[in-house]
Amino acid sequence: MLKRYFPILEWSREYNRETLTSDLIAAVIVTIMLIPQSLAYALIAGLPPEVGLYASIAPLVIYAIFGTSRALAVGPVAVASLLTAATAGQVAQQGTPEYLAAAIALAFLSGLMLTVMGIFRLGFLANFLSHPVIAGFITASAIIIAAGQFKNLTGVPVQGHNLREQIHSFVTNLDKFNVITAAIGAGATAFLYWSRRKVKPLLKSLGLGEKLADTGSRMAPILSIAVTTGLVWFFGLDQAGVAVVGDIPNKLPELALPDFKPDLWMELAVPALLISIVGYVETVSVAQTLAAKRRQRIDPDQELIGLGTANIGSALSGGFPVTGGFSRSVVNFEAGAQTPAAGAFTAVGIALATVFLTPLLFFLPKATLGATILVAVLSLIDFKVIRHTWHYSRADFAAMAATILLTLLVGVEAGIVSGVALSLFLHLQRTSKPHYAIVGRVPGTEHFRNILRHDVETDPQTLSIRIDESLYFPNARFIEDTINDALAANPAIRNVVLMCPAVNVIDTSALESLEALNARLKDEGIRLHMSEVKGPVMDRLERSDFLNKLTGNIYLSQNDAFEDLREKSPTPTPVAAA
Amino acid sequence: MLKRYFPILEWSREYNRETLTSDLIAAVIVTIMLIPQSLAYALIAGLPPEVGLYASIAPLVIYAIFGTSRALAVGPVAVASLLTAATAGQVAQQGTPEYLAAAIALAFLSGLMLTVMGIFRLGFLANFLSHPVIAGFITASAIIIAAGQFKNLTGVPVQGHNLREQIHSFVTNLDKFNVITAAIGAGATAFLYWSRRKVKPLLKSLGLGEKLADTGSRMAPILSIAVTTGLVWFFGLDQAGVAVVGDIPNKLPELALPDFKPDLWMELAVPALLISIVGYVETVSVAQTLAAKRRQRIDPDQELIGLGTANIGSALSGGFPVTGGFSRSVVNFEAGAQTPAAGAFTAVGIALATVFLTPLLFFLPKATLGATILVAVLSLIDFKVIRHTWHYSRADFAAMAATILLTLLVGVEAGIVSGVALSLFLHLQRTSKPHYAIVGRVPGTEHFRNILRHDVETDPQTLSIRIDESLYFPNARFIEDTINDALAANPAIRNVVLMCPAVNVIDTSALESLEALNARLKDEGIRLHMSEVKGPVMDRLERSDFLNKLTGNIYLSQNDAFEDLREKSPTPTPVAAA
Repeated sequence: MLKRYFPILEWSREYNRETLTSDLIAAVIVTIMLIPQSLAYALIAGLPPEVGLYASIAPLVIYAIFGTSRALAVGPVAVASLLTAATAGQVAQQGTPEYLAAAIALAFLSGLMLTVMGIFRLGFLANFLSHPVIAGFITASAIIIAAGQFKNLTGVPVQGHNLREQIHSFVTNLDKFNVITAAIGAGATAFLYWSRRKVKPLLKSLGLGEKLADTGSRMAPILSIAVTTGLVWFFGLDQAGVAVVGDIPNKLPELALPDFKPDLWMELAVPALLISIVGYVETVSVAQTLAAKRRQRIDPDQELIGLGTANIGSALSGGFPVTGGFSRSVVNFEAGAQTPAAGAFTAVGIALATVFLTPLLFFLPKATLGATILVAVLSLIDFKVIRHTWHYSRADFAAMAATILLTLLVGVEAGIVSGVALSLFLHLQRTSKPHYAIVGRVPGTEHFRNILRHDVETDPQTLSIRIDESLYFPNARFIEDTINDALAANPAIRNVVLMCPAVNVIDTSALESLEALNARLKDEGIRLHMSEVKGPVMDRLERSDFLNKLTGNIYLSQNDAFEDLREKSPTPTPVAAA
Repeated sequence: MLKRYFPILEWSREYNRETLTSDLIAAVIVTIMLIPQSLAYALIAGLPPEVGLYASIAPLVIYAIFGTSRALAVGPVAVASLLTAATAGQVAQQGTPEYLAAAIALAFLSGLMLTVMGIFRLGFLANFLSHPVIAGFITASAIIIAAGQFKNLTGVPVQGHNLREQIHSFVTNLDKFNVITAAIGAGATAFLYWSRRKVKPLLKSLGLGEKLADTGSRMAPILSIAVTTGLVWFFGLDQAGVAVVGDIPNKLPELALPDFKPDLWMELAVPALLISIVGYVETVSVAQTLAAKRRQRIDPDQELIGLGTANIGSALSGGFPVTGGFSRSVVNFEAGAQTPAAGAFTAVGIALATVFLTPLLFFLPKATLGATILVAVLSLIDFKVIRHTWHYSRADFAAMAATILLTLLVGVEAGIVSGVALSLFLHLQRTSKPHYAIVGRVPGTEHFRNILRHDVETDPQTLSIRIDESLYFPNARFIEDTINDALAANPAIRNVVLMCPAVNVIDTSALESLEALNARLKDEGIRLHMSEVKGPVMDRLERSDFLNKLTGNIYLSQNDAFEDLREKSPTPTPVAAA
């Protein structure tokens, strides 16, 4: 029981020098990666840079206690930062204490929600975000984030929470274009983009081993920071309009409870739920992918608690919402992290950086951070999945397209809410007019298939119909109509067999429809039978008095029904005569 | 094409003297029933009595042109009147011109929505109101309406849109109790209640025929109106505090466009949708029931247009929302109405009553109308269906209970919205953790059932698993987890067969899960097969490249899979050895 809620008790017992070494190496590499990212993602969220650092300390330690994934790297990520900016921007002006308070409250609320969902094991809620909606949302968010970086990359203000506002803001402020900023931005972007693909092969061709080459290639962002910071400092470019990070308080975060303002919390509730679910979905899918590679298991419900407590910890230490990020987790995994302790060591690294490194970052140009973000989010944009979805399912494509378009044109909240709503609606619409087939027996077998797709035997007095859906309220009336139409076309029918292998539930609405159908068929001298009714459905039917009223039989298999009804048939069937 | 939109073209061609006579008789009986009801339902809606009459003229004529049901009686009904009161009460004070304007705008908007839904054939939307939610909503509405009548029945103000407000209002205003009003109310209620059950047998025992006795029993409300109106006039009881209907303008409604105020319409949009759908569901189910009795058919999508245009007509002629009422339609049907012309004749009757009868209704006590309403709505309260639902399905019961409780304690809108939301949520929750079964062959057959419920043959190297649900986003991850767990328990497994008779769709999310599962099983040296994949599902899979990647086969039947994989099995199976 205790181990369920504190997975640390599980892995800490087998902790030894070897795992310690692996974890420490991974922690160093992730720390180097996380320093620029934490500053950059704070920029996306519209927050001071130190908030990004704070969100990279306490959450990592807490996740090490409550998380079940051995390789997940928790911390600020791009999409959650964008959601934070969109939400905090609705309640306060960027740069004000209220804005910061809203971001902190958002982390707290989201953490609380995740933890409660974890305690009540409500992880299944995350499943309502379908893959196409998630994929569409991430692509659209990445585009918005990338567009937003043109502010840092050129000096031209790019404001707004959707692409329309951003483009409008950019074109009306073009006079603020700063050539030096743009040069630094373009240079850093080109360098980072190039280093992503070329540095590792280059280092390997220089004779470095796989592992060292890999580590070396991860130094590119730090190198770009060092070089551009040096340039700004040396030439005094900050005097020429190049925006720099400036003063970052070089002290550790202080613990503080978030402001409890009921009005604010009410306003943040829905966005907090969105951040929670989007963040959780990303966290769980990264964690599951990595766990499967080492034949480990994660507990999705405990992950809710891990991520929830991490967010509460972030809020209490002045940070903003965190999730399990994809790219850093992969780096952590590949660098050899064996346990969540690697995350705790990373936290120590960030804490040291906060205290000792921040004075060096005064002249760090924001354009470099913008380049870091741009290169990171471009890898999130995935047009291939859009094409695949279009080919496979128009309904899924519609949900994805709605998510992308509304995210780009209205905003992140409208995008994801409409994507989820549309995917639910399309599902319900589909099941409200389910597929059905009139079936016959495949000759020489006991197997029954659609008479339109297969050459099958049928009995002219028996209509066997297979409804390919659970019978429940959206389609309750459809079934009645379908059987009516089928009977109108076949006046010789004396028996109707509902073949139910695809009927996973019959709810109260459908039961009433079946009762009405049974009564009406009885008036017309037609018996209603059912075959292949599943155990759980049968259990439930036995609790009603439908089975007493049913004019026909319940057959274990469709073949039993076919044989039995054919034998009772007064006239020889064409198949038997043939 | 023209006949689809104008069903009158269909039935008017075969119209003759015989159908005319039947329709006229039915119209007279329905008119007598409708005069007190139209006044009473206007009272429920908080509107002047003439609005009830107006809503009983134009809509009936228009439905005769556009409606497909031959016996449906359109007009004011109790539940829609309650919804009107709840909505109009939110935007204006009862008794003001703004309140009336809101009620009229509501009818117009609702009519517009229904008509548009009809043109786009969106009748399936009504299916999302499950039977338990509808039944719960009608019972709770009837209780609120009945409670509200204590104002008319006792003189004590009963205000508010939920039971709590009503009871509070009643107990704090008890000093306004009027003994004479209460006496008239109690007397009329007792008489109407008694006459419902006793008058018909009484008249039959006096030697009247079935039909005449039936007609006679329908005179009771008119008789109670005549007697109590006479009493009030004769003794001058209106001077003693008995509320009377008073002046009703004895002229026909004038045509007028409803006020177009964008703000008002925005506010009324959601309630108008609710009234539309609730009214439509009642209309269609009454119409279908009556049509089935005479082997006629109705067109549910055209009914949207019929009801929609009727509501637009109501609004243009100063009326409020109308629907197809259950009790009047049954009376119309039993009185022998053959075509919708009976409705048009009823409209003529109401128009005549409006012009010539209204002066006689000055002294009609509201207590009598209250009694008419009370007796009418008590028959809508159905506790039996609550008990049945509890026994049959806890999920449906939960949706019903939420609808009833929230309707009673918060209001009609909250009640029905939460009922629909909860029934959708519970459905999704159920399908997100679907039932599944590991299956084996029933000996001597080709039929496969759950190994836990039946004595079946299995093959130790093959895991055959039947998922009893479509594979789609809410359960995409569940399938992976389930198969993982099953494999962990059976290390000897070399083949996994997904038996898919219950899989009616595989969406993009589930396809990605299957691809991931296939890849992981491949790593472990296990082949993944599928059997009994339905035609439409197979068609779609062929559009992806999943089938190329699949390590195993697609079998037409589970038996084919079982035989084929057993043959390839290197060791004899226990069943074969037995």
